[in-house]
Amino acid sequence: MAGRIVALAGGVGGAKLAHGLQLALPDPRALAVIVNTGDDFELYGLHISPDLDTVMYTLSDLANPETGWGIRDETFATLHMIAQYGEEPWFQLGDRDFATHILRTAAMRAGTPLSEITGQMARNLDIVADLIPMTDDRVATLIDTPDGRLDFQEYFVARHHADAVHGIILDGIESATPTPAALRAIAEAKAIVFCPSNPFVSIGPILALAGLRAALDDAAAPVVVVSPIVGGEALKGPAATMMQGLGHEVSALGVARIYAGLADGVVIDSVDRELSDAIEALGMRVLITDTIMRNTNDREQLARETLAFAQSLKTT
Amino acid sequence: MAGRIVALAGGVGGAKLAHGLQLALPDPRALAVIVNTGDDFELYGLHISPDLDTVMYTLSDLANPETGWGIRDETFATLHMIAQYGEEPWFQLGDRDFATHILRTAAMRAGTPLSEITGQMARNLDIVADLIPMTDDRVATLIDTPDGRLDFQEYFVARHHADAVHGIILDGIESATPTPAALRAIAEAKAIVFCPSNPFVSIGPILALAGLRAALDDAAAPVVVVSPIVGGEALKGPAATMMQGLGHEVSALGVARIYAGLADGVVIDSVDRELSDAIEALGMRVLITDTIMRNTNDREQLARETLAFAQSLKTT
Repeated sequence: MAGRIVALAGGVGGAKLAHGLQLALPDPRALAVIVNTGDDFELYGLHISPDLDTVMYTLSDLANPETGWGIRDETFATLHMIAQYGEEPWFQLGDRDFATHILRTAAMRAGTPLSEITGQMARNLDIVADLIPMTDDRVATLIDTPDGRLDFQEYFVARHHADAVHGIILDGIESATPTPAALRAIAEAKAIVFCPSNPFVSIGPILALAGLRAALDDAAAPVVVVSPIVGGEALKGPAATMMQGLGHEVSALGVARIYAGLADGVVIDSVDRELSDAIEALGMRVLITDTIMRNTNDREQLARETLAFAQSLKTT
Repeated sequence: MAGRIVALAGGVGGAKLAHGLQLALPDPRALAVIVNTGDDFELYGLHISPDLDTVMYTLSDLANPETGWGIRDETFATLHMIAQYGEEPWFQLGDRDFATHILRTAAMRAGTPLSEITGQMARNLDIVADLIPMTDDRVATLIDTPDGRLDFQEYFVARHHADAVHGIILDGIESATPTPAALRAIAEAKAIVFCPSNPFVSIGPILALAGLRAALDDAAAPVVVVSPIVGGEALKGPAATMMQGLGHEVSALGVARIYAGLADGVVIDSVDRELSDAIEALGMRVLITDTIMRNTNDREQLARETLAFAQSLKTT
């Protein structure tokens, strides 16, 4: 498909803008969402892909609107029974959510690549956009903290991302290859959008895939970043703490610096308008708008503006 | 523990009498239930042990009283979601039930023997009796029908045990060894009860384990069979069809003939009282009583009578 819209996304924030793009596009089949799998992990013997699931549930309108992750009107009977067997639940897995993990794990054990499984599941949930894991290979995000090196979900969920972050390791990233569908989508892109996801543990792992980064560098399409930092704070999750811990300025300008040389444009929130000149001085164009997505209309509106902004970069 | 009561059981019928024994014994820790695992199978990548689960749920009072299998007040959100992913559900798995399969499968993949997993799960569900799978090895019951050889659950559940049965294969039985706990319980038994379970696909696989059969032959304790055939019909499941298909008389006498040389006594229902002499002519004593267990009281009553009958055989 020529002229694709490619979104790079992590979990909740990325899923919201991906959903907005799905709503904004006249034909959502043009949308390809490349999703971080660096925080995938195994629990109760099941392969969990938190970001992939969040995007999939969001695009299929199954997502819990309260949390942004998980499934709406979800029940937790399986997890309660797991607790009866003496396992202390620390990661919320709902009954319907378990179906995803069970079937995905079975298919992976049978040798089916994650990307193929994901595509089939997305189609079964009536998603017409392409949902693409960044890689079929194992990459594990590890977080260096004052208490030592932690698995990502231990840091993020079990310890509520309260630890200071001294470093981030993407274990396995050197030998991981991007999924062919991701590379194809980038080659066919007319716009590439980095959703407002964490630069280090959501967008970072995707860009750290050597082949994928090269494809982005080669892509003719404009690359637009939507800042996940608004008014000096992360909308959700540990992005601000991580920026601080890793020596970055915690602002949309700090975000822009991370992507300088790769991105052509940055979308920042109206509250950050005074950072515009400094970002443009880095060689990127800036769109100032309301970037906080409180509801579905906000998602679609931000997506439309981001697409128009990308289009304007193409013609300059 | 000296003087144990050992029950051999399959699914629903066996579980009921095992439950009765648990209720009847002054100290239910004396009870050891050795359960068939020949109809274990894999579904959605999970190891399912239908008989073991039925006995475990029954002994922990979690069992669905309507069906005899599954968990009471169960919900089916996981299975519904599995269906949304395009898998046609043919085997009913409830949300809480899935917890059992998930944790068991994870532990088995980590190398823990099924018997150790089962013991831990039973303790977590406050079962003080010993719940013992017949073997930690894989045994698969296959059914020869006019339509060919079928996996047991395909024959039993998917095809509603409607096929004629020409033969039964216990794949893997030659190389399977009984669990040490099962052999220990038999050696320490003061009574051994074959619950009213299917002679071919429930009790049969247990007895087909060479080491276990030898232990039974060596055991000092009396062996009592409770007939699963009442008035010429199976109380549940395909026992009658199988007896017919395999050339046995479909009656409590036919059951007694199967166990002749191994059992010391047979418990038959009052409706079958005219078979008593013929069974005694095979060299076994007979107890005539009401064997249909409609409620918990019936279970306990039949267990008490069976235990007293076994005791009487010991003193003769």
